[in-house]
Amino acid sequence: MTDDTRPEKPDAADAPDTTSPVADLIAELVDSYDHEDLLQHINKAFLPSRERVIQFIELLRHLIFPGFFDTERVTQDNAREHVRGLLTQVHHLLHDQITQALCYERNITRENAAQEQAGGCEDKAKTLTAGFLHQLPQLRHMLGLDVQAAFDGDPAAVSTDEAIFSYPGIDAIFIYRAAHELLALGVPLVPRIMTEYAHNQTGIDIHPGATIGQSFFIDHGTGVVVGESTTIGDHVKLYQGVTLGALSTKGGQSWRGMKRHPTLRDHVTVYPNATILGGETVIGEGCVVNGGAFLTHSVEAGHTVRVEHPQPQLRAQRQTKKKTGG
Amino acid sequence: MTDDTRPEKPDAADAPDTTSPVADLIAELVDSYDHEDLLQHINKAFLPSRERVIQFIELLRHLIFPGFFDTERVTQDNAREHVRGLLTQVHHLLHDQITQALCYERNITRENAAQEQAGGCEDKAKTLTAGFLHQLPQLRHMLGLDVQAAFDGDPAAVSTDEAIFSYPGIDAIFIYRAAHELLALGVPLVPRIMTEYAHNQTGIDIHPGATIGQSFFIDHGTGVVVGESTTIGDHVKLYQGVTLGALSTKGGQSWRGMKRHPTLRDHVTVYPNATILGGETVIGEGCVVNGGAFLTHSVEAGHTVRVEHPQPQLRAQRQTKKKTGG
Amino acid sequence: MTDDTRPEKPDAADAPDTTSPVADLIAELVDSYDHEDLLQHINKAFLPSRERVIQFIELLRHLIFPGFFDTERVTQDNAREHVRGLLTQVHHLLHDQITQALCYERNITRENAAQEQAGGCEDKAKTLTAGFLHQLPQLRHMLGLDVQAAFDGDPAAVSTDEAIFSYPGIDAIFIYRAAHELLALGVPLVPRIMTEYAHNQTGIDIHPGATIGQSFFIDHGTGVVVGESTTIGDHVKLYQGVTLGALSTKGGQSWRGMKRHPTLRDHVTVYPNATILGGETVIGEGCVVNGGAFLTHSVEAGHTVRVEHPQPQLRAQRQTKKKTGG
Repeated sequence: MTDDTRPEKPDAADAPDTTSPVADLIAELVDSYDHEDLLQHINKAFLPSRERVIQFIELLRHLIFPGFFDTERVTQDNAREHVRGLLTQVHHLLHDQITQALCYERNITRENAAQEQAGGCEDKAKTLTAGFLHQLPQLRHMLGLDVQAAFDGDPAAVSTDEAIFSYPGIDAIFIYRAAHELLALGVPLVPRIMTEYAHNQTGIDIHPGATIGQSFFIDHGTGVVVGESTTIGDHVKLYQGVTLGALSTKGGQSWRGMKRHPTLRDHVTVYPNATILGGETVIGEGCVVNGGAFLTHSVEAGHTVRVEHPQPQLRAQRQTKKKTGG
Repeated sequence: MTDDTRPEKPDAADAPDTTSPVADLIAELVDSYDHEDLLQHINKAFLPSRERVIQFIELLRHLIFPGFFDTERVTQDNAREHVRGLLTQVHHLLHDQITQALCYERNITRENAAQEQAGGCEDKAKTLTAGFLHQLPQLRHMLGLDVQAAFDGDPAAVSTDEAIFSYPGIDAIFIYRAAHELLALGVPLVPRIMTEYAHNQTGIDIHPGATIGQSFFIDHGTGVVVGESTTIGDHVKLYQGVTLGALSTKGGQSWRGMKRHPTLRDHVTVYPNATILGGETVIGEGCVVNGGAFLTHSVEAGHTVRVEHPQPQLRAQRQTKKKTGG
Repeated sequence: MTDDTRPEKPDAADAPDTTSPVADLIAELVDSYDHEDLLQHINKAFLPSRERVIQFIELLRHLIFPGFFDTERVTQDNAREHVRGLLTQVHHLLHDQITQALCYERNITRENAAQEQAGGCEDKAKTLTAGFLHQLPQLRHMLGLDVQAAFDGDPAAVSTDEAIFSYPGIDAIFIYRAAHELLALGVPLVPRIMTEYAHNQTGIDIHPGATIGQSFFIDHGTGVVVGESTTIGDHVKLYQGVTLGALSTKGGQSWRGMKRHPTLRDHVTVYPNATILGGETVIGEGCVVNGGAFLTHSVEAGHTVRVEHPQPQLRAQRQTKKKTGG
């Protein structure tokens, strides 16, 4: 901190009250909007609302896991009403945000979109919304297998209820599986907003484009990254800090759409902070990758990737000397 | 994104307004509740409320660290009123959520619980709540040592105030120490909800069952995992990304309740992204474990676990060639 | 969980309603405030409000990236009003929190501060606030280069809009660059609160004191730590889990203000979970540091720091035996 920062405009306080302290700044900033075009979204179609996408996710959570997150008890008697109320809201929110995303993609305003014929944003959004909602039972089936895998794989889990109620891994997989379906249907932008919300909440960053099999378990999860073109088989278990990523290349955007991320076959376990990179890297069935490994090549089925145990050396000066009186 | 997604039900818009677009979905979803039993909590006892547990934590924070997070100044004159108001709310919230958790554990509704004799959920919750609140002065003593350790161990810390006000490590340890006491008293579910909130806020995942000594410091902290049966001595320092975890075994739930996580003796320092696994792994007094190490065996006191420095190699094609004009 | 926790005060329910259940706890806790001095902030100057600092950041985001996060469309016609409204609020919030921080630093209350002559907290805060706001166009210029670097460096990025809208790396760099300017002007405490908010939201922990060049890109980002005295050149790319940190020394606070963190020259790429430590460690121009590396020494320009690929070994007992029927 500098101490030489003295008031440079001591007479500013004497200026008339009609002059806002920010008056001179307004022009500077508006001018800057013209010069830094990349950072402004002026005169363009409206973007989807991150806030409303999050609302959609939270209501969807109540619909998928009835009775776990509700403020009143769900019973056999009120379950139908529970579903009706939530579905109506979820449908409305999702349809609205998909419309917004489609308009944004075509760079047309909502008002112009309303004047279009069939095939416009509103109609397409209706089809996509219905397409997604009809997959909810199948989505619940997949999530049931994930929850079972979490319980089976973690001796600290007291019950599957606890996994649903408090495991960030389950939360991230729930949001990823929903976002993946929306992306597959052709919904722009919204899927990515969804998985970035999961990333924000859990520290687990799964790209909605990744392909992930049944009974997937992420333990603890902070720092996990699963890239766009990753393929993951069934019964795979990832620990915190695992990266399934791409090699950094000079090519940049020229690599778009190519397989840049690894493939993990069934029954693979990857320990904390291991990094596996590259689109041609295949980790075979039943492999175990130890913590902290850095892999850019394939591994045949049934192998363990061992990291050499670092050798401990006696410290030149024992820190505990004083304390132990040695 | 696919472009071939055309409206499949162009006549849906012509349907009468009385038919909700979600009418056909309701039955599908209610049906799915019966088939995916794991994901529903219908006709069962109410669960504790994550939202209200978080409220409890936030008020407890004001009680433990008076004057740091309050919206008005705390003085010698109003301190007593400050405590009275907060304690009344904290007591109410905690008693309510413990009752809920006890009812959930026995799978009885709150109404049935109210009809029970002494020894029921309400009475037991009263005892547990009082038991916890009487430990607050001791909890403050422990946290004072943790704050001092944070300041002593981090040259970037300007003051102990800054550590309390902005260090995620202090936040995570505060919540862990409170959750650990509740777990030791026998409160179900609530302790885990608490530490998962800390995980969500800080990226630091400490299981409430872990045993941790005095003057504990976690620097930065994102990605730290401390497992259920971990034992940590006094004056231990962990950096971000450190895992004190269990080996992944085929046994799964059969390992429940066993010592699966490592023991760290006094004055151990573990650098970023090191992974230490296994219930028989003991890191001796005064040891230093370097960053990125993967350890599944014990280390005797006073040793440094060195990771071999990777050898730099001249890159085949210098990326900076163009820029440097070489 | 223990089952032997029976109600110890069965007669507590019989006590008169006028006795609060917390009555006896109040004195214990007030007494504890006297004994654990470190944890209380009683009779002292008010601290800045974390909540209001966050409000400031969120409004600043709307000002810097117009049209991306707003609830109504920004057009050429309303841009000036958009700026005027936001600037007025941003100015007010920032001035208020800087005043609070300056009063806190001098340990004087706001009321006493108001009675001071020119050079007091209010006046100094006015200068600092204006100083910061006049740098906003330059800040936007720097952020434009960062957004371009994010798009160029990530084939998964669909557009620069997506990077602004959903990349945690952009969010963390935006908050860091604003906090860095405030720290350079001499504002206490507020910059650290800002970057800890970014840390909380993104898992990326950049100290406001770090020096970072143009076109900086952090991909995914969870677990990244950039220490106080780090120096980073232009066009540097960091992946998730990278630490640019200090060696843990016995010296503790005696190291304050010294160069304790590494230097990265231009065009350096650091892969996930690598740890680079020490104030004398310099990573030369164009270097690539592989994932999981642990470096405490310098590397000359144009080199790749390779981590030896761990050797896979056939597992003694193939986990997939049963499944594959082999």
